[in-house]
Amino acid sequence: MLVHLRHGLASAELDPLLALCKELGYSARFLDEGRRLLELSGCGDRTHRTRLEDHPDVVEVMDVGDSHELHVRSEEHEDTVVHVGAGAFGGGHVSIAAGPCSVEDYDRLLRLARGIQECGISILRGGAYKPRTSPYSFQGLGVVGLEMLAAVREETGIAVVTEVLDPRDVERVAEVADWVQIGTRSATNFPLLAEVGRAGKPVLLKRGFGATVREFQLSAEYVLNTGNDQVVLCERGVRGFDSTTRNLLDVGAVAYLAAATHLPIIVDPSHAAGRADLVLPLARAGLAAGADGLIVEVHDDPTNARSDGEQAISLGQLRELTLESKEIVMLDGRVLDIEFGPSATHTSNVKEPIQ
Amino acid sequence: MLVHLRHGLASAELDPLLALCKELGYSARFLDEGRRLLELSGCGDRTHRTRLEDHPDVVEVMDVGDSHELHVRSEEHEDTVVHVGAGAFGGGHVSIAAGPCSVEDYDRLLRLARGIQECGISILRGGAYKPRTSPYSFQGLGVVGLEMLAAVREETGIAVVTEVLDPRDVERVAEVADWVQIGTRSATNFPLLAEVGRAGKPVLLKRGFGATVREFQLSAEYVLNTGNDQVVLCERGVRGFDSTTRNLLDVGAVAYLAAATHLPIIVDPSHAAGRADLVLPLARAGLAAGADGLIVEVHDDPTNARSDGEQAISLGQLRELTLESKEIVMLDGRVLDIEFGPSATHTSNVKEPIQ
Amino acid sequence: MLVHLRHGLASAELDPLLALCKELGYSARFLDEGRRLLELSGCGDRTHRTRLEDHPDVVEVMDVGDSHELHVRSEEHEDTVVHVGAGAFGGGHVSIAAGPCSVEDYDRLLRLARGIQECGISILRGGAYKPRTSPYSFQGLGVVGLEMLAAVREETGIAVVTEVLDPRDVERVAEVADWVQIGTRSATNFPLLAEVGRAGKPVLLKRGFGATVREFQLSAEYVLNTGNDQVVLCERGVRGFDSTTRNLLDVGAVAYLAAATHLPIIVDPSHAAGRADLVLPLARAGLAAGADGLIVEVHDDPTNARSDGEQAISLGQLRELTLESKEIVMLDGRVLDIEFGPSATHTSNVKEPIQ
Amino acid sequence: MLVHLRHGLASAELDPLLALCKELGYSARFLDEGRRLLELSGCGDRTHRTRLEDHPDVVEVMDVGDSHELHVRSEEHEDTVVHVGAGAFGGGHVSIAAGPCSVEDYDRLLRLARGIQECGISILRGGAYKPRTSPYSFQGLGVVGLEMLAAVREETGIAVVTEVLDPRDVERVAEVADWVQIGTRSATNFPLLAEVGRAGKPVLLKRGFGATVREFQLSAEYVLNTGNDQVVLCERGVRGFDSTTRNLLDVGAVAYLAAATHLPIIVDPSHAAGRADLVLPLARAGLAAGADGLIVEVHDDPTNARSDGEQAISLGQLRELTLESKEIVMLDGRVLDIEFGPSATHTSNVKEPIQ
Repeated sequence: MLVHLRHGLASAELDPLLALCKELGYSARFLDEGRRLLELSGCGDRTHRTRLEDHPDVVEVMDVGDSHELHVRSEEHEDTVVHVGAGAFGGGHVSIAAGPCSVEDYDRLLRLARGIQECGISILRGGAYKPRTSPYSFQGLGVVGLEMLAAVREETGIAVVTEVLDPRDVERVAEVADWVQIGTRSATNFPLLAEVGRAGKPVLLKRGFGATVREFQLSAEYVLNTGNDQVVLCERGVRGFDSTTRNLLDVGAVAYLAAATHLPIIVDPSHAAGRADLVLPLARAGLAAGADGLIVEVHDDPTNARSDGEQAISLGQLRELTLESKEIVMLDGRVLDIEFGPSATHTSNVKEPIQ
Repeated sequence: MLVHLRHGLASAELDPLLALCKELGYSARFLDEGRRLLELSGCGDRTHRTRLEDHPDVVEVMDVGDSHELHVRSEEHEDTVVHVGAGAFGGGHVSIAAGPCSVEDYDRLLRLARGIQECGISILRGGAYKPRTSPYSFQGLGVVGLEMLAAVREETGIAVVTEVLDPRDVERVAEVADWVQIGTRSATNFPLLAEVGRAGKPVLLKRGFGATVREFQLSAEYVLNTGNDQVVLCERGVRGFDSTTRNLLDVGAVAYLAAATHLPIIVDPSHAAGRADLVLPLARAGLAAGADGLIVEVHDDPTNARSDGEQAISLGQLRELTLESKEIVMLDGRVLDIEFGPSATHTSNVKEPIQ
Repeated sequence: MLVHLRHGLASAELDPLLALCKELGYSARFLDEGRRLLELSGCGDRTHRTRLEDHPDVVEVMDVGDSHELHVRSEEHEDTVVHVGAGAFGGGHVSIAAGPCSVEDYDRLLRLARGIQECGISILRGGAYKPRTSPYSFQGLGVVGLEMLAAVREETGIAVVTEVLDPRDVERVAEVADWVQIGTRSATNFPLLAEVGRAGKPVLLKRGFGATVREFQLSAEYVLNTGNDQVVLCERGVRGFDSTTRNLLDVGAVAYLAAATHLPIIVDPSHAAGRADLVLPLARAGLAAGADGLIVEVHDDPTNARSDGEQAISLGQLRELTLESKEIVMLDGRVLDIEFGPSATHTSNVKEPIQ
Repeated sequence: MLVHLRHGLASAELDPLLALCKELGYSARFLDEGRRLLELSGCGDRTHRTRLEDHPDVVEVMDVGDSHELHVRSEEHEDTVVHVGAGAFGGGHVSIAAGPCSVEDYDRLLRLARGIQECGISILRGGAYKPRTSPYSFQGLGVVGLEMLAAVREETGIAVVTEVLDPRDVERVAEVADWVQIGTRSATNFPLLAEVGRAGKPVLLKRGFGATVREFQLSAEYVLNTGNDQVVLCERGVRGFDSTTRNLLDVGAVAYLAAATHLPIIVDPSHAAGRADLVLPLARAGLAAGADGLIVEVHDDPTNARSDGEQAISLGQLRELTLESKEIVMLDGRVLDIEFGPSATHTSNVKEPIQ
């Protein structure tokens, strides 16, 4: 590693830093007369980069090629493929999860799950625990919502992704969910990240709406560090200065992360757009930038949704999105995983264009 | 309330919304022919604003004069004064909390506590649980750190403010802390906000580094809604596009919140600056904008601090800061609460300029 | 129009506002008892919205369906098609402009122009006047650069797009350029916008890196207001808080503007990415979101470029980009305009995959 | 200088860079085996930093202690004091400029100028050329406005600061203005920066609302590079993600620039706040952070102002601001330059508290 130090450090200030380097197993030498550049030689492990970055005299760690962090793509570790139900993300597999923002009533959830399956999609999203900016907003049905998800999963065979907010709920959520979501507002909830990692289920990790790419990678590292490598990253837009869209979908981060990490990365066009009319173009843009999948909000009656109804697309639009997605990912040789659910056999008009 | 609706809603879409208004106890009438403006008459309660804001057909709630939210300054509820140890915030009282970023060893903590008391400051900050961007960074001493804080508190009589990250730790932290901190990375950790509120101790609520002022107010509402009104807001800088300072200290938000809410608001110049040389000017700016206090990182050996050493000021600078703060708040008739700790009697050279 | 006024205005304050409405030809009536909502009836013209927005007692103009602004898509004015050389933007036409950041020497420019033509591209970009953050950076060759562009245009038949910075240079630039560029740093240079509009050539208007979508539309309005409607908008990334990419490509703005305005909108993936390895995915994302074209930096020797070499792609990558672009825009029935230049007849290996 | 290069450059790529270093008069040596760190020895001049930063293989110039840029504070060049009329900025001098957003009619301007002088302020601001986001907004009175400013200046002896937008107007504006303003929307209008510099009058340079501190310094460098060192920097708020205030006043940048450059730096609290009720606290915050002065919008009839009326304070508030400013800057031994204009002799009730 090359370490860039603060300007004008006295010997008494440098000594403890040099002692730390020695303790970590490196031999250190200054490269310049001004003693601002320190070259460390040695094997290192994945904790060293941040140990050094934390030091108050270190401006930055410049060369991190040997960082050994767990998310890093390398020759030994190319594509992680994460399987969720009949879908898969990464390694050329592209999948879509769809469903309502929040779980509201059983019949509607079942109807939506079947509608989604008819589009060939095998993963249902739906929130039982909802993180809401205001304490007076609908907070989700909680345990009752989880039970509805479990029942619909049982009934239809669809896989389920749902969010958990509180480390005390992780076990309960992981029992029901095939894929456990850590939401954008929990991206820096470090106790939760570790608890979810330990639950052993695949993890859907959303980027914090104010997080840098590096911070996003380190949130993933919290999960990976528990020994769970079934992590799917999700770009869902970052906060910007313009209100045309709810967030700014960072397609550059998608393209960068697709190359920099072995983890799959998907896109949430619904929260990025914040309005139904822009969901399809943002979904296409995400896939064209290299995303390994999508998670989309769908509703069969958006006007009566108890949260985020303005950004939910209809099942008809979802069908269109599925078709467009299939075509886009085919352009670079990837495959959109589509599986027809039980009720799909009755909807021949839908099946044909997809096959 | 005046409610601004989406353009071009059909009657079938308007009906459920009108039913909701009726259910909440309002009589509703449209103001314009295009039916985009709905006037609601009725008493309302503090949950109604967000219930309506959540509705997918509502663009915004325009007139919120009668929002009844708990943080709102009104004739009935002017200044909340929050007492922490011998200090107080709000209602003309200004106080300072100071201490290391993280609790590291007992002797140093005791030495720092005494140094801080010699500056006339009666609140010690110090982290036992540290939220760190990387899992490989020092995460704080945890329970051992809490014990050190308790022992120093016992030994010196200084009050203690420390952060809690995990709802499962709230009880433990609240036993030791006179003031329980919710950090910037936990501003949207809603289960934690509620759990801390219920612990019944005064709360220090930091603004999320990516949170709007409205979101900050609603984070406070999560705590207030538990029945705990001893909440001090803290502006600590928001994320911007320039790296000269670690964050952008939002003095406009300080001035706005000082007028809009009855809660005290303080400033954290250390995390805003991210560099020791700019801490004093930012502290002065915060107080001049109307802040009711400061929380500052201090270290007697910044180079060996295990976190955030680059932004800690020395005890000498803290003394200077205290003097400057006293003068600035005097200009508008406020008082900086300064109390001399036990060891202060031996430091006559410090006492004099403060008196 | 519906006009939302400030809270609590006295009659004396309302009178001048009502007089203004009358003067503009509207009849006005208040919708609510609190007199915050004013409904204006009348024909209006395109200057009225901002006249009212400028008034200090107006919070916002809420209903702008009848804004009459010149960029607005409407039934009477659907797609504007802008022709530049053999290429066209809008109305189903998609084109690409490519070339070096700055014009540096004649032989290289000619070689690049021919290489670009061999990819089927008929528009050459290249800066003679360069807006540089530092006065000590290379500022472009100026008039000499324009002469080189003119000579290459003459020699190859390629069309030329180049930037103008100073209203005093507009005439000179418009003599050489087929398409006159207003750069991101000039988005609020209003005298320049008007001068370029008056020159009568097609205009390439880049979004300011800190401009909202509304501000971008109003920059366009400055050009359109001169009577010149040959304006192509260009999204080139906005400034964000992360440095992974140089800017954040706002694909949501692309999708929004494609629907909201009749003007074509293209994407500049080179300045958005700031690094050659992310140019292709961002180009694909922009087209998938609905962009009507691309402008891309290309260099045959990026290491010796005098500006922006790190983001220039090679001619080989440009060829790949052209092929990918063709496939993406075909998915929704659009056509990438590709024309083979004179030298293209000698490069059969390139022609085949494009056809 | 220490130069940080891109990773993995081949010898053929390094050769032209090394040739450039030699051409600039440096001897160069690599510090590390990986050849990413290049140490340059030699005298250098102020153009060299950006010449190297522009090179595509250079990641950053790390050590810039010897940058020789003209704005840099050094032992030879401590405080530049800029005199405008009877006021002065820098070197312990603090002054205030006040006036309407735009010049609208002669009688009002004269009345305001006299009211401002009665507050002891000797610099009148007022726009004749207004940069407006929309072409349909009032664009200022232009030459007629300049004539009004000249007449009021003649009549009252007050100094005048006014903005210029177009390089073709610089001569005309500089004839009337004691201080020529380059507005936030012109911060990257490089031809204008140079033209204003050459006019030889003191310059008021506002920070671009989306500009980094480094970009702000380089805008100043464009002016300084013409040989004109009478430049006052002005922080007026940057664009953020929250709309509580119009902009985010960057008090950290004020504190930083006060130390990093020899140029005076002032604050514009009116454009930062965007609302009259927050102007005074932001003005205090700016001065407390180290600003050398203020520029404030004042109106005697804000409701009828043709632009920015919502952020103008009254003359009564200006008087209060002047008194508060005097007290704040006295705390660190600076002096607020106050001079009583001709009409001030009749307003004994104002004079007393100021003296």
